Amino acid sequence: MQEFSEFESLLSRSVQEKNLEFQRHGRLKHLIAASQLTPELLEKLCRSADLIRRLSRNPEGNRRLRDLLAHKRAMLYFTQPSTRTFLSFMAACQILGLSCNEVRDPKTSSEVKRESRMDSIRMFSSYFDVIIMRSQISNFAECCAYLMSDLERQERRSVPIVNAGAGSDEHPTQALLDMYTIVRTFDFDENSESRPSRLNELRRSFPSLTCGPSQKTYTFCGDIGRGRTVRSLATVLSQYEGVRMIFVSPEHDVLVMDEELRQRLKMTGVDFYEVNSLDSEVNGESILGQTDCLYMTRIQREHNSKDTEQEIAEIDLNPFLLSPERVGVLKSYAPILHPFPRDSVVGEIPTSIDSDPRAMYFRQARNGMWARAALLVHLFDAADSLFFAFSDVFRSPN
Amino acid sequence: MQEFSEFESLLSRSVQEKNLEFQRHGRLKHLIAASQLTPELLEKLCRSADLIRRLSRNPEGNRRLRDLLAHKRAMLYFTQPSTRTFLSFMAACQILGLSCNEVRDPKTSSEVKRESRMDSIRMFSSYFDVIIMRSQISNFAECCAYLMSDLERQERRSVPIVNAGAGSDEHPTQALLDMYTIVRTFDFDENSESRPSRLNELRRSFPSLTCGPSQKTYTFCGDIGRGRTVRSLATVLSQYEGVRMIFVSPEHDVLVMDEELRQRLKMTGVDFYEVNSLDSEVNGESILGQTDCLYMTRIQREHNSKDTEQEIAEIDLNPFLLSPERVGVLKSYAPILHPFPRDSVVGEIPTSIDSDPRAMYFRQARNGMWARAALLVHLFDAADSLFFAFSDVFRSPN
Amino acid sequence: MQEFSEFESLLSRSVQEKNLEFQRHGRLKHLIAASQLTPELLEKLCRSADLIRRLSRNPEGNRRLRDLLAHKRAMLYFTQPSTRTFLSFMAACQILGLSCNEVRDPKTSSEVKRESRMDSIRMFSSYFDVIIMRSQISNFAECCAYLMSDLERQERRSVPIVNAGAGSDEHPTQALLDMYTIVRTFDFDENSESRPSRLNELRRSFPSLTCGPSQKTYTFCGDIGRGRTVRSLATVLSQYEGVRMIFVSPEHDVLVMDEELRQRLKMTGVDFYEVNSLDSEVNGESILGQTDCLYMTRIQREHNSKDTEQEIAEIDLNPFLLSPERVGVLKSYAPILHPFPRDSVVGEIPTSIDSDPRAMYFRQARNGMWARAALLVHLFDAADSLFFAFSDVFRSPN
Repeated sequence: MQEFSEFESLLSRSVQEKNLEFQRHGRLKHLIAASQLTPELLEKLCRSADLIRRLSRNPEGNRRLRDLLAHKRAMLYFTQPSTRTFLSFMAACQILGLSCNEVRDPKTSSEVKRESRMDSIRMFSSYFDVIIMRSQISNFAECCAYLMSDLERQERRSVPIVNAGAGSDEHPTQALLDMYTIVRTFDFDENSESRPSRLNELRRSFPSLTCGPSQKTYTFCGDIGRGRTVRSLATVLSQYEGVRMIFVSPEHDVLVMDEELRQRLKMTGVDFYEVNSLDSEVNGESILGQTDCLYMTRIQREHNSKDTEQEIAEIDLNPFLLSPERVGVLKSYAPILHPFPRDSVVGEIPTSIDSDPRAMYFRQARNGMWARAALLVHLFDAADSLFFAFSDVFRSPN
Repeated sequence: MQEFSEFESLLSRSVQEKNLEFQRHGRLKHLIAASQLTPELLEKLCRSADLIRRLSRNPEGNRRLRDLLAHKRAMLYFTQPSTRTFLSFMAACQILGLSCNEVRDPKTSSEVKRESRMDSIRMFSSYFDVIIMRSQISNFAECCAYLMSDLERQERRSVPIVNAGAGSDEHPTQALLDMYTIVRTFDFDENSESRPSRLNELRRSFPSLTCGPSQKTYTFCGDIGRGRTVRSLATVLSQYEGVRMIFVSPEHDVLVMDEELRQRLKMTGVDFYEVNSLDSEVNGESILGQTDCLYMTRIQREHNSKDTEQEIAEIDLNPFLLSPERVGVLKSYAPILHPFPRDSVVGEIPTSIDSDPRAMYFRQARNGMWARAALLVHLFDAADSLFFAFSDVFRSPN
Repeated sequence: MQEFSEFESLLSRSVQEKNLEFQRHGRLKHLIAASQLTPELLEKLCRSADLIRRLSRNPEGNRRLRDLLAHKRAMLYFTQPSTRTFLSFMAACQILGLSCNEVRDPKTSSEVKRESRMDSIRMFSSYFDVIIMRSQISNFAECCAYLMSDLERQERRSVPIVNAGAGSDEHPTQALLDMYTIVRTFDFDENSESRPSRLNELRRSFPSLTCGPSQKTYTFCGDIGRGRTVRSLATVLSQYEGVRMIFVSPEHDVLVMDEELRQRLKMTGVDFYEVNSLDSEVNGESILGQTDCLYMTRIQREHNSKDTEQEIAEIDLNPFLLSPERVGVLKSYAPILHPFPRDSVVGEIPTSIDSDPRAMYFRQARNGMWARAALLVHLFDAADSLFFAFSDVFRSPN
């Protein structure tokens, strides 16, 4: 895009340099890339998400939540279709009282009139207080953040930009909700003040088990090459200590891990393996047996090119499908995640598994609401107000 | 639909058995079919609708209403287009403070990705607190209710399902608002504490006239065969004592009453007649002269098949059109209803009749808002809170 | 449109007669045409817009604003696409707590069913409390206002109609926000209680400069012939004393001022000039040098007919484009306005001018929100409540 040309020099900077621009005193101004989600920030966001979730169960808590950002208006600018992410953000806004507005048609009337994309974004920023955007264009959200930086420097009106999925590249809020689900699951102790903690029980069988995302083995299965959620989550997890990753995918060029992610993981020094079946072994043990968290994904047929369509159609997908037998090998506490939607024809997770207590994918979807609400609270610097609301409602905050 | 197969055995059960599953202690969990609307339940719903309507006229009442369900989020899943029903539900939600979300495009991005319909519904139930749905698929809403029952049994998250029109079959909330309009009209005494009641005045001319929907003659005119509103309303009315029904339609196979409804009415023992003109007589008297309530409908051309199109186009519709002369024959209190939209080309109700005091069809539309709001209050078990709000605002509840 | 025929005799009345019908005791019942915006009314609306804008910066003020019309529901009926006006109205509604509903598809399901347009409007008026409409049909909003007058006379439910742009003819709320921007800019003294006012400073260079829209030269540039915003704003400005207007457009039949506006301006006695370049002179002085307010517009290619397309494509547009050099000639205080979107290919305002302090077009867009909110407050007779809210929040109202 021609109009992005003025930001070209900014786009090629290092991740560190960019992330520095998108924050101030450790608080995000914009969420553009998963690499901004550091363990410290995630801890804050997950704590806020918990407060929101618990307040929402209480009538007075609910009222306080709806008051938190009731003076703000959100623009959901989703020119790349997405039902799930869109609705999840809508619900998150509604929980916090934000007014929602949407533009979903890529052909707005203004574009017909040859308005530049940057003028459209600046129009949105005139009317609304945050722009949540999903676009087919990889760097669009990033460029919008630069536009806002420019305006801020000129002391003009500027608003936070949230990347809700850009092209085939990044999906940072999916990584956020995945991490929130992982943190919640590996919390073990939740709601267990009096009785012996679940972690202690589990330690009888798994002596080295610890709380939190560290020291765990994460297995990703399916469309590793094109799964932006895999890329985003793996990037975030690689920051935690003692994390191992196993990637399970067909040995087809477009489905195996791409070289960029492989190099990135190597640079972080994370211990990772690539295999071609859920029944594979590494270090002489079945991968499912050593998995602490299984992240299933869908083969993204809609991204098949004409060249590869036939080849991919001929792949035997059986080694990449979950089954009651394979679930049987998993550790008793290992959550099964899926960014959803799942493919009802391929059946990478058959519905028969839905009632297994380890099937966390519907809860994971619901967590998206709390995690995204927590992000909005953070962007509007309302974490303290949230905490005060929680104290008021429950008297003794946790 | 393949994925409905697991519910097949449930679909073929008796109406009584189904209705039992969709309620608990007499309160609806889901509204799927008009047959769930018993006189007892309708009395409750109409009373709530009245409280909502009266509160909405008062600033403080309005505020209390908006607080009633402000902690809830609704999904309006309308894959069969409908402006009127959709907007009426939106308004009902807004009156009660519910946040609204919508999916109206039958091709959501998730379906492109081969997500099963049941996964879509379960996603909605993850984010939202009630699913109001209109679909071209007859049993879809019913199957969704079964899915929710399943989840409830597993102690997983489950939400109420509201059928806002399914295929050509059922339209229970239209029957609800029609009944609310009938109950309001045949209340006669409304707002008349001090002066002699309108009922007493009317009894000088109509000595046997009583309050309420019982002991009345209801005349349905137009597209009897394909009118799901006719089917739903007739089903509900057949539960009241002393009700007579007259069905006026062209003598074409697709326009006359279908055999299924005919059998159903026979089984209830209701007294009904089928005639082919508004000028017909039964029992030696003109039907309009003995009608207490006239329910006009539109000939639904959009449902014509290629075979019947020509035949139906050739029917002389004059005997099924209202005119000032025909309205002149109606009893002075008899309401004229129409589920709307009316056909401006055919003109089954010419606009010249709109200013007649018996023309209730615009008020009927507005009643849809109050009646649907009352349904939502009922589904969320907030009827008591509504009553308390009313008492608080007006001090002395009626 | 056939169904408009009953209003034909009303449509041909004088502007004065119409405007009288659309108000009561000086307060608008409907906003249909820019000619309803008298200086007296604009003063009221601009004052309300200011109160809203200032309240919105304060948490408690925000809360009070959201309470102001929280009991009202708006229908945004936009069958002519418009992102900007639509979003601006949405934001205005949200600021005041109004619930928003929208119909944007010209083919609603009801029209397929041959519902008359007047029935659709009356349905909207059954559910909602104001209808904000934008249509390709010139007189549609006006006819809707007549329908509401009819209903009012029959003591039936009637709601305000707001014309948000009708055909190529009128765009009164754009004129309103343009005037609000002009009034704000020519206020000079805003927020300057203690220090010497900006007006006094400016008077050293411009001794005859006064506050307010009067005694100023307004230059309109671009698509004068087809710009309904130009037509609406010029009509409003012609009511102020000592106003001069300069119209700059290519000398093509469809782009120069149309005869109707020329006659209208002549009748008001306003002093106006038509020239063919931003570098032209009138009265021996460059037009930009004597301009107090520059109103740029886009050449509306989408309205080109096949006949004129080629001719218009061949016009040298350079004399009608702003440049740093031309901006340099403008008075130091002269605001540059543009109704937006601007054409990024033609570049009537290059982005390099955006950081000039006289570039007011983004602020102008944001003013649209406050001005439209002020209109809603006026239509619902809530100006007093707004004033009380302001007094409560800031104790000492200005």
